[in-house]
Amino acid sequence: MKELFTITEIKEAKSLLGRDFQPQLKAETVALEQALGRINYDDILATEQVPNFSRSTKDGYAVRARDTFGASESLPGLLTLGEEILMGVPTSFPLGPGQASYIPTGGMLPEGADAVLMIEYADHLSDEELLVLKEVARGENVTLKGDDVQVGDLLIPRGKRLRPQEMGLLASQGIVTVTVRERIRVGILSTGNELIEAGYVPSLGQIRDVNSYILRAEVERAGASPTIYPIARDEYDHLYGLVSQAFSENHMVLISGGSSVGTRDFCLKVLTDLTGKDPLFHGIPLKPGKPALGASLDGKVLLGLPGHPVSARTVYDVLVKPLLQTEEENDWKNMVEGILVRNVVSETGRDDHIKVQVRKEKGEILVYPLLGVSGIVSLMTEGDGEMVIPKGTEGFEQGKRVQVILYG
Amino acid sequence: MKELFTITEIKEAKSLLGRDFQPQLKAETVALEQALGRINYDDILATEQVPNFSRSTKDGYAVRARDTFGASESLPGLLTLGEEILMGVPTSFPLGPGQASYIPTGGMLPEGADAVLMIEYADHLSDEELLVLKEVARGENVTLKGDDVQVGDLLIPRGKRLRPQEMGLLASQGIVTVTVRERIRVGILSTGNELIEAGYVPSLGQIRDVNSYILRAEVERAGASPTIYPIARDEYDHLYGLVSQAFSENHMVLISGGSSVGTRDFCLKVLTDLTGKDPLFHGIPLKPGKPALGASLDGKVLLGLPGHPVSARTVYDVLVKPLLQTEEENDWKNMVEGILVRNVVSETGRDDHIKVQVRKEKGEILVYPLLGVSGIVSLMTEGDGEMVIPKGTEGFEQGKRVQVILYG
Repeated sequence: MKELFTITEIKEAKSLLGRDFQPQLKAETVALEQALGRINYDDILATEQVPNFSRSTKDGYAVRARDTFGASESLPGLLTLGEEILMGVPTSFPLGPGQASYIPTGGMLPEGADAVLMIEYADHLSDEELLVLKEVARGENVTLKGDDVQVGDLLIPRGKRLRPQEMGLLASQGIVTVTVRERIRVGILSTGNELIEAGYVPSLGQIRDVNSYILRAEVERAGASPTIYPIARDEYDHLYGLVSQAFSENHMVLISGGSSVGTRDFCLKVLTDLTGKDPLFHGIPLKPGKPALGASLDGKVLLGLPGHPVSARTVYDVLVKPLLQTEEENDWKNMVEGILVRNVVSETGRDDHIKVQVRKEKGEILVYPLLGVSGIVSLMTEGDGEMVIPKGTEGFEQGKRVQVILYG
Repeated sequence: MKELFTITEIKEAKSLLGRDFQPQLKAETVALEQALGRINYDDILATEQVPNFSRSTKDGYAVRARDTFGASESLPGLLTLGEEILMGVPTSFPLGPGQASYIPTGGMLPEGADAVLMIEYADHLSDEELLVLKEVARGENVTLKGDDVQVGDLLIPRGKRLRPQEMGLLASQGIVTVTVRERIRVGILSTGNELIEAGYVPSLGQIRDVNSYILRAEVERAGASPTIYPIARDEYDHLYGLVSQAFSENHMVLISGGSSVGTRDFCLKVLTDLTGKDPLFHGIPLKPGKPALGASLDGKVLLGLPGHPVSARTVYDVLVKPLLQTEEENDWKNMVEGILVRNVVSETGRDDHIKVQVRKEKGEILVYPLLGVSGIVSLMTEGDGEMVIPKGTEGFEQGKRVQVILYG
């Protein structure tokens, strides 16, 4: 058996890509309501303390905690009712010893008060007198000034993707515009004389270009900005022209098809000529997806993906997606652990990505491997995610707890 | 202790909302590249078989499988080389007995051929003769016509959210426009005299409206369409006017603040008057988030959420998000299972949502509960998700495998 390309370890391929992918991403300032899913450009520090006044967290009565000590339902305490505190109005009067003032949730604690007695534990004896049915501790039902955020606190570190929670945190500081990284631009092109655009009817021997749609959607979902280029014919000059255009206009180029060992395979030569050096890797021990190709130049990367949609997506998930994600996202997210419902065998020489369905049954998460012919588009849409049987492992036994990477 | 509202079970509240939320969503036709994340309006059936010709899945030689029987490296078979098959060109010649034709990956199998011998297992003896180093079975390295999809197959069921995989499947059928449900429109408003818009500087006693930003982002992320209304003052007429406007313009209305038991709480009265009936529930056994309020009319729902951002998000996650998600998404997604690193106690009378951080350490997923004061905005952004200690449970012990609902 002829070995036509070198097999680089997947880890090594990932680390080479990670090392060389250093795109120069500019800063962009956007309105907070447009910032969802964007990546924070620089550390954002707090400019205000939160809350900026001590607030009640309950509907009840502002009190001095010590005035309630020992109070209980059987032995209630007695306080004098002072002025009512209004929501959204600064409280100017101080609370004297032995006094209580009605305070709504979010109301500003008066000077002298240090706790709030919940409405449920108080009884009006008269308009001026309040029975205290429970003692409260200092600070109870109160958020103190600055409790949440102090000036200068790191609110959001650089490189973090902004979620709804971060929107809230920034709004609480009055920050309504945010500086984010420009989106990573990804050029996508498919190669192959047999490919036609999806809107056309294929003649015999032709097939529609499916990968452009899949990769565009994946890239978009990862928060990056995809551009689709025309389908490249299996001709060196045509492919070279399109790849170099895509390279100059993007931070990353994904070429699908053209990386398997065929006589009309020019992808390797185009990438070698364009970057002026050997590719980072050519072939990885991954099933499906072995004939993946990686190259780099000037902080940008170019990837050759297999032509088959199922394989192309596996290579996308393993090699491309991590480059578009934040460090945090690369760690553990989009995983689920479940119980494998039957034995699965695997060849030991490579990482084996097995498509699975995940079902919750009687409170248990069950993992059903979809064992079918590689190359079935419908198989791809029926899977919920993938389970990886690592290189050097002969398979997994029924009942094993396995981790599934969800497609999302 | 006075019980000021009825506590509805969370399951019951969810089921009442699910029963009554029946928005009339129109059909919208969009280009396939705009359809990511949209929900499929109707069943889509296959109009073409896939592939529409039998294809090779490998670079190699089209053969009749029976001609290779018994061939091995030590005892190779011999075949006559026929015409080469070109990519993207219909193969018109038949393959005769004893013949082999070079075929690239994706190439069209000639009539008579039923398998492909991989290039690695063949050796050119001359321009006309090929040594076969391995036998192949019928169908090996071949995807037969219609193997993937038959005409009339259900491609994508109604109500499914379209992911990159579905884009690929539709493109493979030449379907480049899709009919999707219009986005669910969600009106969002905050109530409270103490609230000001986030861009302003609060006076003493005022706080910025944070919930509008959080809920807008959550709704957007769920694939629905949010509209923010002005902040409602704690006055019946003002609140009624805004809520009824939002109700007429949207399928769902989220009102935050104003649902706790305060003397200026008009939300309950507004919802009762607007719908002409008692609310579906008022108060649910959930921490944080107890004072949630739900009402319905004409297939639309209105929800009162707590004013505190952390509590409002918990109620959003538990009651609102399921209404915006597809059935599939409501089952098990966005969960992760990990090992709890310390004991957590809980009151038994309600579902207790504990914010946690999830970390992967030495291959194990560890769950760190964030036990802090409820009401810390920064706590919200530090959490990766929530662990739920169900009603009736006193807590979880260190080492327990717990499931975490990820914020995503």
